[in-house]
Amino acid sequence: MQPHPVAIVGASGYSGLELTRILARHPAVRLTALLSDRWAGEKVASRLPVDGPAGALQYSALSGADRLDAELVLLATPAEASADLAPRLLARGVRVVDISGAFRLRDPSAYPLWYGFEHPAPALLAEAVYGLPELGRDGLRGARLVANAGCYASTVALAVAPFVRAGLVEADGIAVTALSGVSGAGRKASDEYSFVEVADDLRAYRLGKHQHVPEIEQTVARGGGRCGPISFTPVLVPIRRGILSTAHLRIRDGVGAADLASALESAYASEPFVKVRPADKVMVKDVLHTNRCHVGVALDARARVAVATSALDNLVKGAAGSATQAMNAVLGLPETAGLDLLGG
Amino acid sequence: MQPHPVAIVGASGYSGLELTRILARHPAVRLTALLSDRWAGEKVASRLPVDGPAGALQYSALSGADRLDAELVLLATPAEASADLAPRLLARGVRVVDISGAFRLRDPSAYPLWYGFEHPAPALLAEAVYGLPELGRDGLRGARLVANAGCYASTVALAVAPFVRAGLVEADGIAVTALSGVSGAGRKASDEYSFVEVADDLRAYRLGKHQHVPEIEQTVARGGGRCGPISFTPVLVPIRRGILSTAHLRIRDGVGAADLASALESAYASEPFVKVRPADKVMVKDVLHTNRCHVGVALDARARVAVATSALDNLVKGAAGSATQAMNAVLGLPETAGLDLLGG
Amino acid sequence: MQPHPVAIVGASGYSGLELTRILARHPAVRLTALLSDRWAGEKVASRLPVDGPAGALQYSALSGADRLDAELVLLATPAEASADLAPRLLARGVRVVDISGAFRLRDPSAYPLWYGFEHPAPALLAEAVYGLPELGRDGLRGARLVANAGCYASTVALAVAPFVRAGLVEADGIAVTALSGVSGAGRKASDEYSFVEVADDLRAYRLGKHQHVPEIEQTVARGGGRCGPISFTPVLVPIRRGILSTAHLRIRDGVGAADLASALESAYASEPFVKVRPADKVMVKDVLHTNRCHVGVALDARARVAVATSALDNLVKGAAGSATQAMNAVLGLPETAGLDLLGG
Amino acid sequence: MQPHPVAIVGASGYSGLELTRILARHPAVRLTALLSDRWAGEKVASRLPVDGPAGALQYSALSGADRLDAELVLLATPAEASADLAPRLLARGVRVVDISGAFRLRDPSAYPLWYGFEHPAPALLAEAVYGLPELGRDGLRGARLVANAGCYASTVALAVAPFVRAGLVEADGIAVTALSGVSGAGRKASDEYSFVEVADDLRAYRLGKHQHVPEIEQTVARGGGRCGPISFTPVLVPIRRGILSTAHLRIRDGVGAADLASALESAYASEPFVKVRPADKVMVKDVLHTNRCHVGVALDARARVAVATSALDNLVKGAAGSATQAMNAVLGLPETAGLDLLGG
Repeated sequence: MQPHPVAIVGASGYSGLELTRILARHPAVRLTALLSDRWAGEKVASRLPVDGPAGALQYSALSGADRLDAELVLLATPAEASADLAPRLLARGVRVVDISGAFRLRDPSAYPLWYGFEHPAPALLAEAVYGLPELGRDGLRGARLVANAGCYASTVALAVAPFVRAGLVEADGIAVTALSGVSGAGRKASDEYSFVEVADDLRAYRLGKHQHVPEIEQTVARGGGRCGPISFTPVLVPIRRGILSTAHLRIRDGVGAADLASALESAYASEPFVKVRPADKVMVKDVLHTNRCHVGVALDARARVAVATSALDNLVKGAAGSATQAMNAVLGLPETAGLDLLGG
Repeated sequence: MQPHPVAIVGASGYSGLELTRILARHPAVRLTALLSDRWAGEKVASRLPVDGPAGALQYSALSGADRLDAELVLLATPAEASADLAPRLLARGVRVVDISGAFRLRDPSAYPLWYGFEHPAPALLAEAVYGLPELGRDGLRGARLVANAGCYASTVALAVAPFVRAGLVEADGIAVTALSGVSGAGRKASDEYSFVEVADDLRAYRLGKHQHVPEIEQTVARGGGRCGPISFTPVLVPIRRGILSTAHLRIRDGVGAADLASALESAYASEPFVKVRPADKVMVKDVLHTNRCHVGVALDARARVAVATSALDNLVKGAAGSATQAMNAVLGLPETAGLDLLGG
Repeated sequence: MQPHPVAIVGASGYSGLELTRILARHPAVRLTALLSDRWAGEKVASRLPVDGPAGALQYSALSGADRLDAELVLLATPAEASADLAPRLLARGVRVVDISGAFRLRDPSAYPLWYGFEHPAPALLAEAVYGLPELGRDGLRGARLVANAGCYASTVALAVAPFVRAGLVEADGIAVTALSGVSGAGRKASDEYSFVEVADDLRAYRLGKHQHVPEIEQTVARGGGRCGPISFTPVLVPIRRGILSTAHLRIRDGVGAADLASALESAYASEPFVKVRPADKVMVKDVLHTNRCHVGVALDARARVAVATSALDNLVKGAAGSATQAMNAVLGLPETAGLDLLGG
Repeated sequence: MQPHPVAIVGASGYSGLELTRILARHPAVRLTALLSDRWAGEKVASRLPVDGPAGALQYSALSGADRLDAELVLLATPAEASADLAPRLLARGVRVVDISGAFRLRDPSAYPLWYGFEHPAPALLAEAVYGLPELGRDGLRGARLVANAGCYASTVALAVAPFVRAGLVEADGIAVTALSGVSGAGRKASDEYSFVEVADDLRAYRLGKHQHVPEIEQTVARGGGRCGPISFTPVLVPIRRGILSTAHLRIRDGVGAADLASALESAYASEPFVKVRPADKVMVKDVLHTNRCHVGVALDARARVAVATSALDNLVKGAAGSATQAMNAVLGLPETAGLDLLGG
């Protein structure tokens, strides 16, 4: 079988780099172009430990996005850039998997509010298929446009959705604190993210205002059931990559620990990339450099709260690995293609 | 004025070390003994950058606890050891400031449940004065026995109590996630806390079962008002010291951002060690090596939740600094004595 | 082709874990047993993100080492244990690749001096083939016993040997400082390697006495040329994995920067796992989780010194990856088998 | 006694911040102004845990440097800015302690070569008194201009000078590798020093070309004796602050371990801020937040090399603490004034 020609736009960001690592070794695709103004003219092998044809590729300028020779393009660009690029690629018959938030929200009016820009292609929001197969695969195969799930939405929704869907917890009053490594902020030339400022420190940011909030709620509800407004507090912690989420959910009368455990087990029994662990054994280090999300739950009977914990690598299952999984689904490949080799 | 003779028992643990640093430079006390079996026979100056008389002291064995020449002893020992030592010291007329949890809970029956031991001196639980002056100073001056506040209870209660007391939030359904540096676990010879296991990792532990849970609830209520069962999730993060807490509180009808801000401001306007900051500017690095707690609050109007953040250095305001503050109060010294020099 | 049956002894140490990760995905071998007393009875999949047959394997006790069903066994055990196990395995016709130092030194009398034990099988020291193919492949194919190169010897010798062999530098007066991540100390239940003790700290250790010193000198000389006593200073730094070495070499008269660069380039032009970089671009992060060593050199003309820098991942190219490379050579497989997929 | 009025220029850099912390608590000085364009208009207390009059000060613009009301000004500015500011302050009769390299080198022609600029006030290079009292106090008392020692020169020279002066080692062939925390690079808005790029990484930089090389050689020689060209390799390591240096020195015939130890002991017996430790007990963590330098030496008899290790906090003994010590000497105060309270 001929490998599928694919290209990456935004290849020098942290998600773009991770995508390159993964696709360079993917058995069923062939990288045809890697676009990055920052590194244009340099060889991939000078930036990544990649040999062979992918290592010999040269980065090229973003201006080449309209002439890409590819069946499918992965956009690892900021939301506004993706919102601009995707329609042009689709118009040329190229499929698109977008890693940004540009096509994740159904409601166009949410963009000015949460993302700070008017959406230039609101019609595409209805067509875009959300990329988080474990909470719904319908429409992915053959999709023209995939809005790949965000890192926070993936982490939180994979842990919370099974309980909401099963009606074990209240749909309102969900309180989440999610800890993220610094690569979640992207490649930044700001002293705010310098080693001296971030190491040995912890701080919450964008409390109640993070642009991923509506996506989290929409994604929890995607699993089935209603989801009220979630109170979401992201925290910056001194690790390079990884997210750990703790979600506090009020349980309904009569719900016990066994109900919670079995909701989780049955949701993911046949999923290759989501594994159930005891809530206090859900650790970032076990999922680093893998396409896995680990989830767990503990019942706090005194407080009548279920605490759902989850962990993933924001650059793999939270971005590049997850996008590869979605790409596989679009192209009719096994979802695990090229991802079962990742192992930290 | 003659300096007060004081001694430290458990001087080689992380809290004991920090106490030594502080008291060695305290203008109104004189260290007479530092007990530690681990370092018995060694000079203080070989372990800490301390000169002068304190640096010349030798650590001595714990067996000397019954012969200490001191007006007041600070116990930096595990809870069971403190529960055993304190009555013996009190019987000899020595005042005690205990850093462990041995005398913090009012209800003796809570000890087997949360701490795993039967309390050997339950009568003292009624006498012990809780050491967190910002939520109540009554009884500290001249107290025989101080149960100094724990690090988690201090962090959480200082951020939450003002809202509970002012009736701005529901007493039930409080959900807290608190991130702690590794020194919170004490000095451990276990590969669980080795650098390789902890660095680059995040994980929640003792979900709903941490022994500080009843103390947190009791301390929030100390500020005034009722406090229902709190759902408390501690998380281990790769920093040496520091705690950041995020508390999600359901607001009552009609409560606005200004109400929340003013409850916090008025609670701490005259406190030297608690400072109000914007919720997203409450950072561990600003309080490291100081006796300060920084607190802040943000209103999440969509979710009708107040998110209260707080940060302190678990070894200073969460242990040794706070114990020094309590000791100052007991001895009739200004609470800030010896603590205004700390500055990171 | 039938996969080669291989087993790992000492599978729960950091090198053993890394070996398991690599061999579980190796296309030409089949893991038949993983010995570890620590985890005996547990499934591999509960400890590592490994699926398929390898994930379903159970760890079993070290006492089974004499009944292993394997063509080749990799020993990830301490030196004394390896010195005891290897002869028993060889006697049963099983090939051995040993990751410890047990068979690295040619001279039996060096063992009491540097390793602190009398060697129990000195005759095997002459037979053992040293495993660092880039400085000599002779004898590896079909070898019964491979003494795989140590992490420090690999890092230092790959950077230094080309200059010694080419006669560009003095054989005496080589001064090396090598910085190592904490996993280099192995899995330790000691507060010396706890996060609190190691983070934010730097310290040199075993100055001039490290047991790898004679191996480093022997390995530099293996490349060709004489190597005088090296002054070697290892430093513990707060990273989980990785080594960076800086070697100061006195250049001979008339030697210029171009001579140094070309010695390095020609030494490794056809090596898949050693890459030449500018000396200040040799970084640990570029080689993490790969089987690569990056090397570079800078001429300090004022001081008449060549500074050779090198970096590798101590658990991959410094242990498990390198052992896999040696195993491949022994079995007649391409050296890169199973290693070209590693990519961080 | 009236406190001495002093001001800081460049108060928002890492050295400036540390100076502010120290001088705010200094018993014999009064801060009159803190200049920083970055924070102009903000209160000190909003940036640092400092109360009292110093906390109430407002940062003001650098343009006010010519109107400062101060007996002495500490310059925490880049070298070119200091070279410009110092002559103007001196002309107004204000004493200057400069933390940059602007006045450290005796030879004006070294500036274009190592610092990249033509020195604007070469006549002052002869007048400037070098600020590293432990290697020479002459001229400090009452000095108009102090060129405070750099962090690398202090670390290396304090460890090396005693052996050179005592003639125990060769003056040529000294090889130094020095590991520095990231704050050594100053406050930088560059992704080169971002947490993601620096954490988990190690790399050497400016090999043989660092601008501190001539200062190191000059400072070693200041202690007495000749110092040949030093081969100096700085390494960036993932800690916020601290330097560890390892210096390899070829010993002269007949020199033994006792000679080395006694040279070190006698050099620093009466110095409050330099402490001798076993070479493998010289650790960054013991000197953090103090004005101390710890030094040690080990004899590698096989290689005929003395390895001298040393550690200090680059922001305290390597910058702000050391500048305070020099300021004390200039003003006729005890060198330890305001510095004996620092204790990590």
